[in-house]
Amino acid sequence: MAPPVNRRNFIKTTAIAGIGASIFSPNVLFGKDDRKARIGIIGTGLQGRLMLDSLLMQSDTEITALCDIDRQALAQAQDMVVQAGRKKPEGYSNGPHDYLNMVTRDDLDGILVATPWEWHQQMSVAVMKAGKYAGVECRGAFSLNECWELVRVSEETGMPCMMMENHNYKREIMAVLLMARDGLFGEMIHAQCGYQHDLRRVKFRPGVEFGEKGENESVWRTNHSVGRNGDLYPTHGIGPIASIFDINRGNRFVTLTSTASKARGLKAFVLEHGGPGHPNANVDFKLGDVVTTVIKCANGETVIINHDTNLPRPYSNMRRVQGTNGLWMEDNNSIYIEGRSEYGAWEPMLPYIEEYEHPVWKTFMREGVRGGHGGADFLKTRAFVQSIKRKIPTPIDVYDTATWLAITALSEKSIAMGSEPVKFPDFTGGKWVTNKPIFGLTEDY
Amino acid sequence: MAPPVNRRNFIKTTAIAGIGASIFSPNVLFGKDDRKARIGIIGTGLQGRLMLDSLLMQSDTEITALCDIDRQALAQAQDMVVQAGRKKPEGYSNGPHDYLNMVTRDDLDGILVATPWEWHQQMSVAVMKAGKYAGVECRGAFSLNECWELVRVSEETGMPCMMMENHNYKREIMAVLLMARDGLFGEMIHAQCGYQHDLRRVKFRPGVEFGEKGENESVWRTNHSVGRNGDLYPTHGIGPIASIFDINRGNRFVTLTSTASKARGLKAFVLEHGGPGHPNANVDFKLGDVVTTVIKCANGETVIINHDTNLPRPYSNMRRVQGTNGLWMEDNNSIYIEGRSEYGAWEPMLPYIEEYEHPVWKTFMREGVRGGHGGADFLKTRAFVQSIKRKIPTPIDVYDTATWLAITALSEKSIAMGSEPVKFPDFTGGKWVTNKPIFGLTEDY
Repeated sequence: MAPPVNRRNFIKTTAIAGIGASIFSPNVLFGKDDRKARIGIIGTGLQGRLMLDSLLMQSDTEITALCDIDRQALAQAQDMVVQAGRKKPEGYSNGPHDYLNMVTRDDLDGILVATPWEWHQQMSVAVMKAGKYAGVECRGAFSLNECWELVRVSEETGMPCMMMENHNYKREIMAVLLMARDGLFGEMIHAQCGYQHDLRRVKFRPGVEFGEKGENESVWRTNHSVGRNGDLYPTHGIGPIASIFDINRGNRFVTLTSTASKARGLKAFVLEHGGPGHPNANVDFKLGDVVTTVIKCANGETVIINHDTNLPRPYSNMRRVQGTNGLWMEDNNSIYIEGRSEYGAWEPMLPYIEEYEHPVWKTFMREGVRGGHGGADFLKTRAFVQSIKRKIPTPIDVYDTATWLAITALSEKSIAMGSEPVKFPDFTGGKWVTNKPIFGLTEDY
Repeated sequence: MAPPVNRRNFIKTTAIAGIGASIFSPNVLFGKDDRKARIGIIGTGLQGRLMLDSLLMQSDTEITALCDIDRQALAQAQDMVVQAGRKKPEGYSNGPHDYLNMVTRDDLDGILVATPWEWHQQMSVAVMKAGKYAGVECRGAFSLNECWELVRVSEETGMPCMMMENHNYKREIMAVLLMARDGLFGEMIHAQCGYQHDLRRVKFRPGVEFGEKGENESVWRTNHSVGRNGDLYPTHGIGPIASIFDINRGNRFVTLTSTASKARGLKAFVLEHGGPGHPNANVDFKLGDVVTTVIKCANGETVIINHDTNLPRPYSNMRRVQGTNGLWMEDNNSIYIEGRSEYGAWEPMLPYIEEYEHPVWKTFMREGVRGGHGGADFLKTRAFVQSIKRKIPTPIDVYDTATWLAITALSEKSIAMGSEPVKFPDFTGGKWVTNKPIFGLTEDY
């Protein structure tokens, strides 16, 4: 059923999707019609299986094919499908390019990519060129060329390329989005966000191993901390802010500066847990422990993005959304709204979330929150599935994907040049001026 | 008694002060000896009178002379001295340059400057040239030349120029300083700080007036928001961080980028409270509502500084101090230390403050916390007084003062050039490599 959504159809359906929250009848909620989206997954490691888990909770999905070079991971994923009472999906495991055999199947509408970062690009491109919806896990781009290629291929094929960013689907985030759209914060001025996650026990596993001797993500992810210095993982932070700031839809990112601290955390970890005699004690990790990126937007807003993955710390996305009328801050879980909050005093966030509860989350909580990452994995895969079924663009589109990915390449460039400001490409080719928001407009995805 | 502290003496006394916490006998605490420091104040507005109030709580001070062009403010200050049972200080009120007659008195050891920002420079210079210790209220520099001039005059005259920054003397800050020096955070990596203070009712007073029709600080302070765009008030944020990061003492600020959001808050305030017909509704305020500055240090640390004074918000200095072993964050009043905190969980800050209570604060709490800004005004003026009495350099010296002031001029420059990185001058002329910390080393100031 892979829909021939061409550029013209995109614009048409985008316009329809932009009308508002009530264009879809409630009886299609949570897959209660009989159409199905036929989904495949390339990469059935931890993250791929998390998405699979959420897909299996949706009755309007068929899992047709799965691909992984690791036969054990593949078998485990196939078994999950069978355990869910469904037909065993065909497996592709014949070396690193077997995914090319999978993407051409004619019983697939969309394919999710959850492989190591260095494979995302060619796989996303292959998926779109095969006429399927592409849904790609989070990362950052190695170069701007990659981002441009995604845009070009998506425009040429008419196939969406959705960054599978679960943070945009978090309850709090979707409520803050409605607050912003309702004008609660006034005119938008500033935001802060980031990925502050102690990944040392992900980057080193088992013990202080990574690369060939590593396990799970340490096999491939850690090498990016050896050779690269920049905000390697910007999308959890920036995704929600981009949505709230209408990026590519009346606004855009214009310039970026990035500054990295020294790199100490990873080496210290190896020395502490592996000792100075361990071979990895000689590795020089290039990634600064804290990378600070500052973006200026066309409409005059500023955004700070932090990347902080090498040091001991509690998890935080450091989010703050600030306008002429007040601000929300994640780190103290509080909000301040002029004329409503007591003068100069923070208020707890929860009553505001309940007041501005997004329809998607109202439905979700009524029908039962499920899936990984607090339900956000369910909602993001659901959005991908529903977009396929309705033959409409994904609510995170290729321009969002390219823009968020580009932060990494621009951050590396700015840092390499001593924090020089670098210009953000306009991936929309000027259409950001007239494009309208498409995320979080409906009540069911 | 104005001491002839020349460059050579400075170095000698700095070395002595650097020995540690126990070189001064406890019987000089809180002015229990009979030596006195003879102090004058230029500018007896709100801030000047706050410092005067703290000086009058110290029995080892004499207030010899006061100066203000506003005879009423001057009389009020003189009356405070008399009410405290002391001799009425001589007043200087004969026009804006009468301070020049005051600084040459031979019964003054040190002079505090608490005038509008545009007067600080010439007054500080005059004070030092007259052979007195200069203590100057917080602001930011208009140009790097100013900063260099302070350094040059201080070196030539041997007179200190102390930024009267009270935040360095806050209880929490002094405890965090000890934590850092004790290695609790490990090697320093990153810090955040700022001045996030809704000043709209300071910048506009009464109503939406400022400038000639204004009151108190709105008479002069608001004009800086009209014509300038940068971090106008960096010292509350950066003072404590500079101390914790050993800036100018084994470390230094190397480069800075600065990015300003659009300017909306002040105009919105005028429109809301004065209406579109008010003359000030036509003023275009150039100061971005949120200014984000990022500094890279010679030892590889990064610092974010926020300036956010035009929008509704609760007060915060956004402080965060982060090292290889953990971090403190002001906004949730929490700390996380690897191996001590429960894995991944914040701990309340208070027990750590009590554990690392600075000797100055132990004494202060035992003898009674007093003076404005939670006692910090008392401690900063006390440090000024004690430095004079002991004929030693002030614990915040002219290099600190020049460096902190320079942030404003550099921030304005970077913003004007589209966030270009700008180089930080080394005001120490290379001595930062060998200079040792001088702040917070003793138990009594």
